[in-house]
Amino acid sequence: MNIEVCFTPQAYHLFHKDEAIVVVIDVLRATSAIVTAFYNGVNKMIPVATVDEAKEYQRNGFMAAAERNGEMIEGFELGNSPFGYMNNKVKGKTIAISTTNGTQAIEASRKASKVVIGSFLNLDVLCEYLIEQKKDVVLVCAGWKNKFNLEDSTFAGAIVSKLTKEAGYETNCDSAIASRLLYETAKDDLYEFLATSSHRNRLAKLDLERDIKYCLTPNQCPVIPVMEGKYLVKL
Amino acid sequence: MNIEVCFTPQAYHLFHKDEAIVVVIDVLRATSAIVTAFYNGVNKMIPVATVDEAKEYQRNGFMAAAERNGEMIEGFELGNSPFGYMNNKVKGKTIAISTTNGTQAIEASRKASKVVIGSFLNLDVLCEYLIEQKKDVVLVCAGWKNKFNLEDSTFAGAIVSKLTKEAGYETNCDSAIASRLLYETAKDDLYEFLATSSHRNRLAKLDLERDIKYCLTPNQCPVIPVMEGKYLVKL
Repeated sequence: MNIEVCFTPQAYHLFHKDEAIVVVIDVLRATSAIVTAFYNGVNKMIPVATVDEAKEYQRNGFMAAAERNGEMIEGFELGNSPFGYMNNKVKGKTIAISTTNGTQAIEASRKASKVVIGSFLNLDVLCEYLIEQKKDVVLVCAGWKNKFNLEDSTFAGAIVSKLTKEAGYETNCDSAIASRLLYETAKDDLYEFLATSSHRNRLAKLDLERDIKYCLTPNQCPVIPVMEGKYLVKL
Repeated sequence: MNIEVCFTPQAYHLFHKDEAIVVVIDVLRATSAIVTAFYNGVNKMIPVATVDEAKEYQRNGFMAAAERNGEMIEGFELGNSPFGYMNNKVKGKTIAISTTNGTQAIEASRKASKVVIGSFLNLDVLCEYLIEQKKDVVLVCAGWKNKFNLEDSTFAGAIVSKLTKEAGYETNCDSAIASRLLYETAKDDLYEFLATSSHRNRLAKLDLERDIKYCLTPNQCPVIPVMEGKYLVKL
């Protein structure tokens, strides 16, 4: 099996393979929030590209989440802070969600036969699942507005590292090789390694250090969200 | 001053700044060949996006070079092997050139106010020149067919490393931070570090190890090619 890393949603078409499993990655914070939501009993989520679509779901009685540039949009009950999803109000609910980068990456991957959601919070269960499937894997980083970012590529490297070292996956993909090096340099202190990253600094300005520390702590939420039609559900 | 790295030509529009200097990078082998050509007395080069355009120049009496997927195209006198440019036949000549990735990266950067050509072969003189200009710098990697590649990003990291450590440049660009890490991991043995890279393996199959070793040996050709209108000339 082969593993590749796509650094930005806009490049996904260069990596698409009909049979591959896609993992969508937006560590700070959309995919961390989604994993947290399912771990806390959310029933379904509906990722949408635009705030208007999220608004429309809200009008129709759904809970709805919307974030742009790190901040929750006024009029919504939730943004992409994982802490927003740690309460009983979300239990059993279906939540529409639109974020700056994460839901765009999901949108870009729609053609894939299988799309799952990855973050440090579900790293180990996700790797176990991928290894069981015995299929090629494409890791799609959300990045920041179609630019490469450090936290998503570093997390992609964690998966590349596990799958190549422990399960015999191969890669001839330079972005997978670079990602693995990032992770192996970072793994002993992710928080420190990402101290210089542009988005961490963007979020620090918004006083979101607690979110960042949470999102960088592996294996707190052993669940795997997967796309089924327009819904994300728990595998 | 600020320094950023753009991993693929198709993303250049996200990095464009009117006043910044662009360095186009295609280490294996287009920009190494171009630097070698000027070092060996070529007068001008005309980078063109398509083989047809190169053919048209050839019909009009110019020397012409064309390469696709690592191989010289039949009917042309030159490809992108630097060794093709190390002889008296090229001295004083104007040569049209089209390559798989390198000339595409030049094409993508046309909007920039200043475009220069970078490779390990002219690393030190290029950094000295950039530092003298006191302007923002955007490093544009040619990559491989709009995918990230390891050798161009590693070379970009060499420039980021020098300019941030020795000349006070700043960066809030995650791809610059990642590139610098690649270079700092690779610098003691570039050849070994790039052993796993996809393009090195592509070229090794074409029996181009001699080219690769040459292209990864810094500072053999202290010249800086620069775009002037449609021409590349020696600065």
